[in-house]
Amino acid sequence: MSRAEAGKVYLVGAGPGDPELLTLKAARLLAQADVVLHDDLVPQPILDLSGKHALVMSVGKRCGRKKITQAAIHELMISSARSGLSVVRLKSGDPLIFGRAGEEMDALRAAQISFEVVPGVTAASSAAALLGVSLTDRRIASRLIVLSGHPAAGELPEQMLSSAKISEDATLAIYMPGNRLAEVAAALMRSGLAEDTPCVAVRDASRPEAAYQAFRLGTVGQVPAPQGPRLLLVGPALESVLARDAEAAPECARQDAASAASLQLE
Amino acid sequence: MSRAEAGKVYLVGAGPGDPELLTLKAARLLAQADVVLHDDLVPQPILDLSGKHALVMSVGKRCGRKKITQAAIHELMISSARSGLSVVRLKSGDPLIFGRAGEEMDALRAAQISFEVVPGVTAASSAAALLGVSLTDRRIASRLIVLSGHPAAGELPEQMLSSAKISEDATLAIYMPGNRLAEVAAALMRSGLAEDTPCVAVRDASRPEAAYQAFRLGTVGQVPAPQGPRLLLVGPALESVLARDAEAAPECARQDAASAASLQLE
Repeated sequence: MSRAEAGKVYLVGAGPGDPELLTLKAARLLAQADVVLHDDLVPQPILDLSGKHALVMSVGKRCGRKKITQAAIHELMISSARSGLSVVRLKSGDPLIFGRAGEEMDALRAAQISFEVVPGVTAASSAAALLGVSLTDRRIASRLIVLSGHPAAGELPEQMLSSAKISEDATLAIYMPGNRLAEVAAALMRSGLAEDTPCVAVRDASRPEAAYQAFRLGTVGQVPAPQGPRLLLVGPALESVLARDAEAAPECARQDAASAASLQLE
Repeated sequence: MSRAEAGKVYLVGAGPGDPELLTLKAARLLAQADVVLHDDLVPQPILDLSGKHALVMSVGKRCGRKKITQAAIHELMISSARSGLSVVRLKSGDPLIFGRAGEEMDALRAAQISFEVVPGVTAASSAAALLGVSLTDRRIASRLIVLSGHPAAGELPEQMLSSAKISEDATLAIYMPGNRLAEVAAALMRSGLAEDTPCVAVRDASRPEAAYQAFRLGTVGQVPAPQGPRLLLVGPALESVLARDAEAAPECARQDAASAASLQLE
């Protein structure tokens, strides 16, 4: 195993939140880097794995914090690397599923800064692990479709979903639906999904505060308003979660992963 | 960090092949488990992380090896756990994206064996990291669609893809196309994708022997027959890989991750 290189930027996936779900490579680079530039969603126990000498800086753009522009993030990465420092750009989940790694890699290429991407565990995998359901169970779901529910580009759910061409035997993983669950559900039904399609909203899947709420698409209005769920899973693969919840306690007690979670989001 | 529990089964993602892309949790459980039941695709350097005392057994079902039935795998997991052993069921990539974890979890639930799923880095993330392309670059690709190209259930590519409802601004990640690249490409074109849609076949993305071949969907016939590529990526997000290849050596030298790979599959 080599050391983090001077003058190089590592775009590193921090995984879904549990520090133990970092990859060995991510943990090593984090401990070795001179500069760590992280998203707001990366929890403190992960940042604590940075080296004592490292400059650790949030470059998140949410929650009323002073806005850091994307251009400023590029400039920070480039100037740090040009100063001969090793830089970890730490992103929650996998760096190349959502987020703006595409723009960041373009900026690094344009500046002729050496970089490497270290993949991470994405939120859909973590949510499925919590629930104990296969995202592509060949008996019921032939494919996984990963969509964003985050209005990063000013998009409405309608626009995001209208061209998604969603088929009924797919599992949808909608990242960052935030508090727009009802809007997203309505758009899915207009896209042709049945009202009784099973859904599970999952929050902080891999962390001690993990929680989920299972419901049917048409009953989204009766779901207690969840505080910032990270992920919405939709499709026949989730039917077993609703069935398990209906069967209630005895089955939950047997299934460790699921019983670790409280059964509601708030 | 707790120890691997006696009498429990851990369905663990081994990630894309590089031992450093195991999660910290996967590495810990592997070192602690009494029994490790692994797929054929998990490379030896990862198996070497098992504890000295552990029984490590391949339960893979490919490559002319004596066929182990799915029922026999269930029985092995259940009987080992009932004997009070801690069991790691090690699967390449993420356990809940393809593979038969759905059936394995059903069997464990029916036998009332305690289990936990440990998510891993999936092959699409690893391939994207090698290529340095975002799978969901908001400027060009709104979603990621994960499909299987493996005829596990006797399916033909036509059947797999006909209902996939593929839209042009999606990135497709087709797992395990094997040597059926031409068949899969033809099916994609019949599904409506343009002949000039960029594609990249990637083999062993995270390993020293990593390699890729970029081409356009309609020219698949001119692509040298690749030996068992693990993944085929398709969609406008891959355009930059073809552009980079066309620009040739200077750009490749700049981009570390890509230059680590040879430019052809065989």
